Amino acid sequence: MNTRDVAKKLVEMCRQGKFIEAAEALYGPNIVSIEVMGSSEMPARLEGIDAVRRKGEWWVKNHEVHSSKVEGPWPHGDRFVVRFTMDVTSKVGPMAGKRMTLDEVGLYTVRDGKIVQEEFFYDMGQ
Amino acid sequence: MNTRDVAKKLVEMCRQGKFIEAAEALYGPNIVSIEVMGSSEMPARLEGIDAVRRKGEWWVKNHEVHSSKVEGPWPHGDRFVVRFTMDVTSKVGPMAGKRMTLDEVGLYTVRDGKIVQEEFFYDMGQ
Repeated sequence: MNTRDVAKKLVEMCRQGKFIEAAEALYGPNIVSIEVMGSSEMPARLEGIDAVRRKGEWWVKNHEVHSSKVEGPWPHGDRFVVRFTMDVTSKVGPMAGKRMTLDEVGLYTVRDGKIVQEEFFYDMGQ
Repeated sequence: MNTRDVAKKLVEMCRQGKFIEAAEALYGPNIVSIEVMGSSEMPARLEGIDAVRRKGEWWVKNHEVHSSKVEGPWPHGDRFVVRFTMDVTSKVGPMAGKRMTLDEVGLYTVRDGKIVQEEFFYDMGQ
């Protein structure tokens, strides 16, 4: 699959709510995942499909998703962007019980038909 | 200005239709601008504020903008993403006279309070 095919497949699976299945199918074994901010529980930078799978499972377990919208992809060479808008209620941490809208974009890098890096962009309000 | 301040200023000016003024105010002199595809008239990669200014003026001259939406910014470290949706009619080239919706995202890099690189992502349909 070329970058655009991988991008379209990721968007299609995420639209079906298959976030973890998408990672299993499309991510390389040495995937690097980078958030804007980390916490003691979850560092900003993770490496390897096992760590990324654990992050995905942790996220699913700790958030109730009321609805979500997945837009894109916007490709450029071996990279592409996807936008995620999610209406969620966190079950843990300082935001526990609060319903909120997450609005973020992911920047993905593809090599040899697999996603090798994901970076998330969002406004931390400061 | 930090990256988020620069990002918010760019979005604010673009929402007012001040695309060229935003470049003058926020871009560094050695700005690098990268499109997905170039043409004989306009290469994909441009360097320097003069070349980027000429591209902006060329674009404004050759497109009628009926409406536009600017969303974001989504920051991450020294970079940020902005989404542009534009209802335009091209005045030249193979699309001359055709009204179309452009949907693209820009990925910007900031150094010392100035934008030093812009890269645009969009679906070429192949």
